[in-house]
Order: sequence, then C-alpha cells, then structure tokens
Amino acid sequence: MFNPNLTGTFAPPVMEARRWLEGVEFPPDRPLINVSQAAPADPPPEGLRAAIAEAAMNVPQAHLYGPVLGLPDLRAQVAGDWSEAYGGEISADQVAITSGCNQAFCAAVTTLAQQGDQVILPVPYYFNHKMWLDMMGIEAVPLACGPDMVPDPALAETLITPSTRAIVLVTPNNPTGAEYPEGVVRAFFAVARAHGLALIVDETYRDFDSRSTPPHDLFAQDGWDDTLIHLYSFSKAYRLTGHRVGALVTSAARLSEVEKYLDTAAICPNQLGQIAALWGMRNLRQWLAGERDEILTRRAAIEAGAGALPGWRLLQCGAYFAYFEHPFDIPSDQLAQRLVAEAGILALPGTMFMPADDPAGTRQMRIAFANADTAGITQMFARLAAWTP
Amino acid sequence: MFNPNLTGTFAPPVMEARRWLEGVEFPPDRPLINVSQAAPADPPPEGLRAAIAEAAMNVPQAHLYGPVLGLPDLRAQVAGDWSEAYGGEISADQVAITSGCNQAFCAAVTTLAQQGDQVILPVPYYFNHKMWLDMMGIEAVPLACGPDMVPDPALAETLITPSTRAIVLVTPNNPTGAEYPEGVVRAFFAVARAHGLALIVDETYRDFDSRSTPPHDLFAQDGWDDTLIHLYSFSKAYRLTGHRVGALVTSAARLSEVEKYLDTAAICPNQLGQIAALWGMRNLRQWLAGERDEILTRRAAIEAGAGALPGWRLLQCGAYFAYFEHPFDIPSDQLAQRLVAEAGILALPGTMFMPADDPAGTRQMRIAFANADTAGITQMFARLAAWTP
Repeated sequence: MFNPNLTGTFAPPVMEARRWLEGVEFPPDRPLINVSQAAPADPPPEGLRAAIAEAAMNVPQAHLYGPVLGLPDLRAQVAGDWSEAYGGEISADQVAITSGCNQAFCAAVTTLAQQGDQVILPVPYYFNHKMWLDMMGIEAVPLACGPDMVPDPALAETLITPSTRAIVLVTPNNPTGAEYPEGVVRAFFAVARAHGLALIVDETYRDFDSRSTPPHDLFAQDGWDDTLIHLYSFSKAYRLTGHRVGALVTSAARLSEVEKYLDTAAICPNQLGQIAALWGMRNLRQWLAGERDEILTRRAAIEAGAGALPGWRLLQCGAYFAYFEHPFDIPSDQLAQRLVAEAGILALPGTMFMPADDPAGTRQMRIAFANADTAGITQMFARLAAWTP
Repeated sequence: MFNPNLTGTFAPPVMEARRWLEGVEFPPDRPLINVSQAAPADPPPEGLRAAIAEAAMNVPQAHLYGPVLGLPDLRAQVAGDWSEAYGGEISADQVAITSGCNQAFCAAVTTLAQQGDQVILPVPYYFNHKMWLDMMGIEAVPLACGPDMVPDPALAETLITPSTRAIVLVTPNNPTGAEYPEGVVRAFFAVARAHGLALIVDETYRDFDSRSTPPHDLFAQDGWDDTLIHLYSFSKAYRLTGHRVGALVTSAARLSEVEKYLDTAAICPNQLGQIAALWGMRNLRQWLAGERDEILTRRAAIEAGAGALPGWRLLQCGAYFAYFEHPFDIPSDQLAQRLVAEAGILALPGTMFMPADDPAGTRQMRIAFANADTAGITQMFARLAAWTP
C-alpha cells in the first residue's frame, strides 16, 4: 500500500545520474569530467576541520539535543551578518537553523500549504522543490521563464488563484545560474504581498553571486517578514554538504509553526554541523571571498569557451551553473547518457528540471562547473566540440 | 497565511516543559531533578568521540554528500546485527539510515498515507508521532491501552476502516515503558497483514529491554517486509542524540519510495553521525551491555520506591520510563508545573501524550529516569512523598 502522491513523483535525479556511471570504463587519458553535482568536492579547510574535531572531543553539548530552532549563537550570527549584507533589520528570533536547505524548504511549504493547494514554481525548477510539492499533494503551477531564464512577475500574477499559497524563487538559480535582477525580485515581492501570498526566496548560492551590491532589498522593506521566507545553505560556502545545515529567515510567528515541523521531522539540527557553520561564519570570510573569486574565474572560462562551441547556445550562467541549449536531435536525457560513455562527461539533462510534457527540457543541459578548474573546463569544451551523434 | 493542519497541532512539548523552568530558583540544597527528557545527559565514551574527531580531520568523505539511504557499511552492519538479534533474515538493501528516528517515522508514514487517510495510534502516544499525522492531515485513530498499558490487537481490528493505512507500535513504549509481549506484537502483525496494512514498530528503546530473548519474531516471518516497517534510533544506545541518526528497515520496494522522501527532506543523513553510529556498533557492544544493566538497576529502584509512595500508582515501567497515576485532584499539566516550583522536579504530564479530551491524561505522569541514579531516584521519591497540594 503506497501513498499515490509519493509514487507519482520521480526518483532522485542525482542518484539516477550516478547509476549512469555504473559499468562505464574511463580510460586514464580521458578521465571522467563530472559536472553533474552542485557541490564542492573537497573537504573544508583544515582550521574548520580542527574546530569540528575539537568540539567532538571536548564539548559535551556537541553530542546532545539542542534547541529545535538551532544554536542561539548561530541564529544571532546569521541575523547580524544578513542585516549587514542586505541592509535590513533581522533579529535572531527571525532565524531558524535547519538540517540543510532542503529541509528549510519543506518546513516553509508545510507552514503554508496543504494537499490541494497551489504553489507557483518557475520552470526550470530545482527538482527537490517539485518533489516535495508532489509528495505533499500540492500542485506546482509552472511559471515559464523568459529567454534569459528570468521569470516574469506580471506573468506570475496571472497564475494566482484562490488556492495559491506561495511563489518560489531560487536566485542565483539552480539549474540555470541566472542572478535575478533586484527589480525583478522586488516586483515578485510586491505581487506576493498584494495577494497575501508568501514569497519563498532560496539563496543557497548567494555567496557566489557576481554582483558586488546586495542581490535584493527585500529585508529593507517595512514588515518584510509578513511575506518573505528566505532560505540559505551553509553547504556550499564552507564545504559542509555532508553536515546538513541550512537556515530559514522569516517572521517569529511563522517560526513558531516551523518549530513544530522541525521538532517532529528531526528534533534539532545536528550540533557539530552547527558548530562548524558558526566557526566558518566567524573565521572564513576572507577565505570565502577567495572561493568566490575562483568560481567567477571558472564562470569566465565557461563564457569564453561557450562561444566557440559549435551549435551549443549558452542560455544563462552564474553561481555554479551554466545552462545550455544543445544542437542535437536527441532528447537531453539520452544525450547525457551518451556523453558519459562517449565523451567521459557527466552532466544533468534539462528533462530533470521540468515536467515531462515540457519540450524545452529535451534541448537543455546543466553544466555544474564548480568542481572543474579552467583546464578542466577547456578539456570539457574540447570533448564536446569533438563529439558528434 | 498558514496551513491549518500545522496550526491545528500542538507546540513541541519538550520546549514547553523547558519554559516551565524559566525564572524558577533551585536552591543549592534542593537542585532540580530533571526527569522530563528521554535522552542521555552525558556525552559518548571517549573512544567514540575520538573516532568522530579523527574522521573530521582525516576523512574527506565525512564532509561531503553521501548516498541518500545512508552509508553502505552502516546499512550492512544493521542488517547483520539485526538478523542475529531477531533471528531473521535482513539484507542491507532493506535498511535505510535516516536523520534520526523521528525522520524515519515521517518517511514511513509518507510512503503510506495522504491527507484524509487514517493511522491507528495507541494512546498514550509519543507526541511527535501525533504531530506528524496532524500536520499531514492524516487522522490518528486512538487505540486505548489496557490497564497494563498494552494495546489489544483485537480492539485495533475493530477500528480498521477503508481509510486505514497503518498501525503504529512503540515498544518498549514511550511514554509508558511497557515492553509489549511477543505474542501481542505478533498478533498485531497478523491483523495488519490480514487487512493489507503496514505495521510500524518503533524500537528506539530496544537496547534497554529487560528481556534476554528477542522482543518479537516478526523478522522471522516469511515475507515480513510486506507488512513490517521497523524504526530504530542510534541516539540512546551510543549517546548520539545531537547527531541525528536513526534507521528504517522494510522492503527494498518501499525503500525506493523512502529514498524519494529522504532525498527531498534532507538529501542524506549527516556523515559524522553515521560514522559514529557504525563505530559504536562495532566497538561498544560490551559498554552498551553495561549501560543497559545500569538502566535496569534504576528501574528496580523505581519499582522498589514506587510502592512506598502514598497514593501514587505505578502503571508501567521499562526502558527509560515509569508511568504513574497520581493521587491529586489537579490536572497533570498543572501538577507538573507546581512540582517544578515546589518540589524541584521536572516531569511530563500525561496530557502531553494523549488528546485533550481524554480524561486519563490529567491523572498520569511520565518519569523519564534514565538520567537519575538510584540516589537521585530515592531523593525524588522523598520529595514526592513530602509534597502536598
């Protein structure tokens, strides 16, 4: 006996892509170039690892239950740093720490919507967002993006019905890399507020935004927390993917409901991950700036190489991602599997980021370049240029 | 805008009980006796802490994403140890590792039921189970326990409707401590199977069961995995509450659906917690046997002292818990708050473990004695005997 909402959604795309590697030989002179996963491949710097080890040995509380909404010092650090970064006023009681940013999304949606409700989701989407809506029986209403992969607030407004509960934005975007312009984000906020909806803004990749100014001014709006639910991940900035630590910033009133969800779903975020995140925020600001510079260098290599790749069109680029339209009459999920075997490249097809009935997905490919250095990116382009169906 | 399923459930009871301590002075000659939380208060043994620290420093994979269903070595270890302990056949692909046992319950239920469905839940219940069902819009159908706090399979069968998806058992039980007899568990399994339902058996406290024989023989039943979903927590055995690691054992087919849920809700369990759990299973069997002996000693002290406590009646006792009927004409939630201020004792009232309209809760109290040594238990009984309304 199975819940049809769960059986009706798709299997985890990253696990499926891993299976494509099974049984494939990668010769020594053509090793796999893995541009499938949006995650650092190296462990955190030694100082951070030492801080975790020290806490494991000598801080008893590191092994015990903590507050459901997270360590008070970490909540306060996020509130302070975000207030500075966004030019707004955020207090610690508007911050929850979660077991990763996926959990933050699940918690946010559960405070808003039940089975039969609707949430507006720009397409292409981050697949786990779609999966959560599916398994909760909530309808994901697709919002097509423009040619620059940026969604249109006015178009979103036409999709609002009495069942709509929220609009979801991911900026910089996964899978496209698009950095949504400040004015677009602000217009979405206005639409959401005018209709009494929540605006969920997932900023997992904020630390790699190319802009030197704040990406939006929502936290500076009066009463921002009646509309905005901001999500964040510590995984990318400090290479803590294996520790599962994220954050959710919204009104204290909504956090009372988030607290029920988090208590039930996990009791509390794990303590060592929170200690690591706090240490990172306090000690790795300079190091993180260097990480961002390196990502921006790789992004420049992508943009430079893309123009020379016959037939492929770079639709967007930013954060960890380049989003391409490929030139072949082959559905992207088949192309992706052939590229593994025939070019030694693992990338995710556009079909993983949109509904099966959306034809655009079959022509699109996501290249997550965070783990490929400029030499690797050059090599990847050479292989793609040489490959023919 | 809020999801009424979430606003309609109650706030986390443990957080509420913590608030009762705020502003209360505990004089040096009468320190707080905290028998509210079912968790070890001490960190894990030094060898385990050192294993975590070593992995944090020197195992790169400890910081990176891992498989959604958990580390293969840990899944295999659970399969092997459980096969031995229960006299059954369990393979690694029937085991998932979760971010704590609460998450295992959420995942299990989500594979089975959607809004409008029913799940049979013995009363008193573990409050987070009730909260998850509430927030998912699933009706928790209460199954009253007998005077020995053991639910009756025949009575459960009368509650089954076309909307029923599962029956939930917790043994040894939280909050009552009852160790459900093998025959009772087996009869529940038969009822569930006959009606095509799942039987969810949460054995978080299995390591502290007083019986020297397997607590049930369900894993030895042919095709057990078409009906049984077994849940476990590594938190209690190895003092890893702050690490959030649990397990879910069922059919590989159901685990494909569990994988969707876990991928979306958390991506993977945190790596250090899994490394710690595996180290514990491999190295702390003898140590854990000593922990169990100590808990059984404390349980004996509870049983010995309870008889001398005027008016209080011990309804059940086992694992970390003693479950009492108190003699006062005061609702247990008020009694619990008065005991904090007037006797320096924090215990949870029965009202937290059953629906508000169930009158039994007002006369019941849970004493979680795992953190009170025999001297502390003697002291607690002395204070309770001296207290009058």
